Amino acid sequence: MRHLFTPKRLACALLTLSSASLLHAAELNTAKPVIAAQARNVILIIGDGMDSHQISSARSYLVGSRADMLLDTLPVRSAVQVLTVDEHNPERPVYVADSANSATSMASGEITSRGRIGTSAGSDRDITNIVELAQAQGFAAGIVTTANITDATPASFVAHTASRGCENPNIMRSNEASFYPPKPDCDADRKPTGAGSIAQQIVEGSIDIILGGGYQHLAATAEGTETTTVAEDGTAEGTGLITLAQNNDFDVVLDVEKLNDLDPNKKIIGVFTDSTMPTRWQGTDGRIAEKVETSLLNKVYVMLGSATLPEPMSCEANPEYADTPSLQSMTAAAIKHLDSRKGDKGFFLMVESASIDKQSHKRNPCGSIGELEQLNEALKIALDYAAKTPNTLILVTADHGQAAQIIPDESLFVKVGIPAYTPGYVARLKTPEGSILAINYATTVFPAEEHTGTDVPLFANEVGLGLVPPRITQPKLFNLMADYLQLDYPKAGH
Amino acid sequence: MRHLFTPKRLACALLTLSSASLLHAAELNTAKPVIAAQARNVILIIGDGMDSHQISSARSYLVGSRADMLLDTLPVRSAVQVLTVDEHNPERPVYVADSANSATSMASGEITSRGRIGTSAGSDRDITNIVELAQAQGFAAGIVTTANITDATPASFVAHTASRGCENPNIMRSNEASFYPPKPDCDADRKPTGAGSIAQQIVEGSIDIILGGGYQHLAATAEGTETTTVAEDGTAEGTGLITLAQNNDFDVVLDVEKLNDLDPNKKIIGVFTDSTMPTRWQGTDGRIAEKVETSLLNKVYVMLGSATLPEPMSCEANPEYADTPSLQSMTAAAIKHLDSRKGDKGFFLMVESASIDKQSHKRNPCGSIGELEQLNEALKIALDYAAKTPNTLILVTADHGQAAQIIPDESLFVKVGIPAYTPGYVARLKTPEGSILAINYATTVFPAEEHTGTDVPLFANEVGLGLVPPRITQPKLFNLMADYLQLDYPKAGH
Repeated sequence: MRHLFTPKRLACALLTLSSASLLHAAELNTAKPVIAAQARNVILIIGDGMDSHQISSARSYLVGSRADMLLDTLPVRSAVQVLTVDEHNPERPVYVADSANSATSMASGEITSRGRIGTSAGSDRDITNIVELAQAQGFAAGIVTTANITDATPASFVAHTASRGCENPNIMRSNEASFYPPKPDCDADRKPTGAGSIAQQIVEGSIDIILGGGYQHLAATAEGTETTTVAEDGTAEGTGLITLAQNNDFDVVLDVEKLNDLDPNKKIIGVFTDSTMPTRWQGTDGRIAEKVETSLLNKVYVMLGSATLPEPMSCEANPEYADTPSLQSMTAAAIKHLDSRKGDKGFFLMVESASIDKQSHKRNPCGSIGELEQLNEALKIALDYAAKTPNTLILVTADHGQAAQIIPDESLFVKVGIPAYTPGYVARLKTPEGSILAINYATTVFPAEEHTGTDVPLFANEVGLGLVPPRITQPKLFNLMADYLQLDYPKAGH
Repeated sequence: MRHLFTPKRLACALLTLSSASLLHAAELNTAKPVIAAQARNVILIIGDGMDSHQISSARSYLVGSRADMLLDTLPVRSAVQVLTVDEHNPERPVYVADSANSATSMASGEITSRGRIGTSAGSDRDITNIVELAQAQGFAAGIVTTANITDATPASFVAHTASRGCENPNIMRSNEASFYPPKPDCDADRKPTGAGSIAQQIVEGSIDIILGGGYQHLAATAEGTETTTVAEDGTAEGTGLITLAQNNDFDVVLDVEKLNDLDPNKKIIGVFTDSTMPTRWQGTDGRIAEKVETSLLNKVYVMLGSATLPEPMSCEANPEYADTPSLQSMTAAAIKHLDSRKGDKGFFLMVESASIDKQSHKRNPCGSIGELEQLNEALKIALDYAAKTPNTLILVTADHGQAAQIIPDESLFVKVGIPAYTPGYVARLKTPEGSILAINYATTVFPAEEHTGTDVPLFANEVGLGLVPPRITQPKLFNLMADYLQLDYPKAGH
C-alpha cells in the first residue's frame, strides 16, 4: 500500500469538492425529497460465491423447490456483471474474479486484479472505500463476516494491501516458504513504510464495529512488539495487536456472551473463532462430494461397464458450530451498535456469509446450504430493522460464481444404456421434500474447486425500487450505495 | 395423447367459464384500462439452455465484458424457478428439466415430467396450451425455431405426445431398435386412436405460421399414405404430411426466398433444413472443447507432473450456415404474417434460439455464442415491432440451465505450483477484447453434456414493468402471458 489517501488528505479532498458534486447531491434531494436530518443507512449483504446454482440448491433443500426463501421474496431483482483485470496489463479483462478484487469493486468502485485488497492493478495505489468515505462524512460503519475479519471480503472494506494474504504481522515478517497458501508478497505494505498487515490496519483504524472469526490474526504481534496473551478472565492483554486496538479505543470482544452487551461508546472488534467460523451444517458423518465408482470394464473404455454413484446423504448439524455466534446474532449486534452511533447521518454495514464459497471450494454442499440459511436469517434481521427505520437500503448480492452445479440425478441419457456420470465429484442430497438433489463439482482436479465467471444475482428491499437497474456492473454498486447515502466523492475514476 | 380437450370441447369449456374467471378478466381491465378494441400481442423468446453463464460468455465474446448486449438493456429482469416432476410419482420433484417438460410448463402452466410434450406426468392427459387458447379466442399464433419445428420446445406449444421423440409417422411406426436417440414409446399417440406424431399434429392443426428446420419430419409419410416428394420447381407434392398440410389450408414453404412473400390468407409451414438449422459460428477449423493433456507423471499422481491446456481458438463462420435463413429473418416474417392475421385481438408468437442448448451438449461454445447473437437480432425485430405497436409484451427467458461454465483460464491456485485443470473438456476462446475466455464442460463423461438445475433469467420490455414479478415459477409464465392477452381459461390447475 502506498498512502495516497490518508484520513487527513481525504478530509481535505472532501472540503475542496467541486460544486458539480454538491449539485449532484442537491439533485438527489430534489428527486426524492427527504427531511434534512433523516439518517440513511445501507446494509450490503454479500453471499460469497452465491450464484444462481447456490440459491436454487439452497431453496430446494431448505424450503422446497416450489417455495420461497426470504431472499426470494425481495421486491427488486437485478444481475451484476463481475469485472476483473490483469495485474500485468490492467487494460486486459480477466473473466473470473476472486473475492479480493470483487469486494474491492463493491467497496470502492474500481476494477482491480485478483488478490488485491483496496489497491489498484499494476500500480498498487490505495483506493478509497465506502467505509472511509462514510466515516469521514459522519456516518457510522461496520462489518460482519463468518470468515476471518482479515479475509478478502471484509478486508476490502477496511484495508489496503497488495495481496490478500498479508493478514497479520507474522505472515508479513515470515521468511518461511509455505506450500498452501503460498507466501504472499507483502513487502510494499510492511511497517514502517507501509500501513502494515490487514489486521494491523483494522486495529489502527476507525471502524465502529467488526465481528467475525480470525483470532489467530488478531493474536499475532504488531511489528516490533511482544506476543499478545489472553488473561484467564477472558480479557485480552498484551503488547501486540490487541493492545494496539485497546489503545485505539476499541473494546476487543472474544466472548460470545458479550455480544449482547456492547458498549455503545466504544468501537468494537469481536472475534469468536481462531479461523473461519464453522458452518452450521455438514454432510452425513462429514461426507462431502465424492468420485463416482466405475467398473473395471468402464475403466478400460468409458462407454462400457457400469458406474456407481455415491450413496445419498442428508445435511446434519456440524458439532463444531455449536459454540459460535450465528450470522444473525452478529448482524443484530452490529445493527444495534451502529444504530446507537449513527448520529443524524446514518450507517453503512457490510454482512458477509463467507462459507457459501469456502465450502464450495471444499465440495461440501451442506456447508454452503447451511451458510445460505444463515444469510437468510441475517437478512431477516436487516429487514426487521428497515421496517422500523425509514431510508434503509438493503442490497444482497454475491461477489462471484462458484463451481457447484445442480445436475440430473438420473442422467438425461439414461435410456441409452451406457454409463453417464460426472468426471468430477458429486454429492447426492436427500431433500426434505423427498427427492435427490445432485451437486456436481468439476472445475478442477486440484484439491479446491475454482470460481466461475457468471453474472451474479442482486436483490434489494423496496427502498431499492427505482434505484437498482435491471443490470449493473459490480463497481457501480459502489456508486449506487454512495449516492444513496448522499456521500460526496470524486466522480472521476468512479 | 388422450384427447380430453378437443377444439370443440375447448370451445364448450370456454363458453361455460365460471363467473369468477370473468370477474378476473374484468379486474384486469379495471387495473389497467385499455381501449376495448386494441389488440394485445405476446412475443416469447426462448433461449434454449440460456442460463447466466451462457449470457455472460456471449456478452464477453460479442460486445466485451463491460458492454451491453441488446438483451442486457431490457428494463425488466427476473428469475425463473424451473419445475419438473417424476413420471412415476408426480408428487416428487425432479431438480433438472429437459426442454419438453419446461416448454410444456411455459406453454400450458402445468408441471410435468421430462420428455413429455403437452401431456401430464403419469396420466398422459393432454394439457391445453396457450396457442390453442389464444386461437380459440380469436388471436393469431405462430412459432419460430432454429430447431426442427417438431423439436421439444416448439412441439410443446402445438402438440401433445407422451414422448418428445414421436416427431414423425415413420418413427412412430418403426419397430427398429435405435441406439441414439433411443426409440420413443409412441403407442398411445398412434393413429387412429391417438392424434399421431408431432409433425402430423402440426399439419392437421391451425397454427398461423410455424418456421424452422426439420424437413425430414415433414417429408415422412402420414400413416397409410405414400412418400411425399418435392417437385423440381421447389413446390412440395405428395400424399404424405405435406399433402395433408396443403389440404388443411397451409402453404408449405421450403424456399428461403419465399419467406419475404408469404400469402397472408394462408397458414404457413416453412422448413428450410433437413434437421436442426446450422449454427452461425463454429470454433476454428470446427474445434470444440477438448481434454487437457497431461504428462506421464501427472497420470501417475494428479499432484505431480504437468498439464497442457488446449490451444486458444476463435469463433469463425460456419460454412453450413450460409444458405439458411437467420432467426432474425424468420422472426420478421412471422411477425409480419401474424400482424396481418391478428384481427382486433392480437397474436402470440414463440421464438426459440435452440442451439444455445444443442451446442452446449456438443461442447461447442462458438455454436452457442453465435446462436445467442441470433437471439439478440431476433429480439431487435421484436422490439422494433413493439415500438410501433402498443400492447406488445416481449418476454425473453431460458427453459433450463446448461453445462457450460466460465472458469479461470489461469487457475486461482496457479501459485501453488501443482497442476490444476478441469477433469472435463475446456475451450479457450480468444475474445475480440484481447483476453482468453475459458469454457468448461464437465457434467458427464457421456458424449453429450447434461442440463443443469439452476434458476434461469427472465427479461421483459417496458410493457412488463409492474407485470413481471422479481421471481416466478416457470408454469406461472403461462398465467402471465394468458392474463396479459386477457384470455379466459380455467384457473383451477393453473
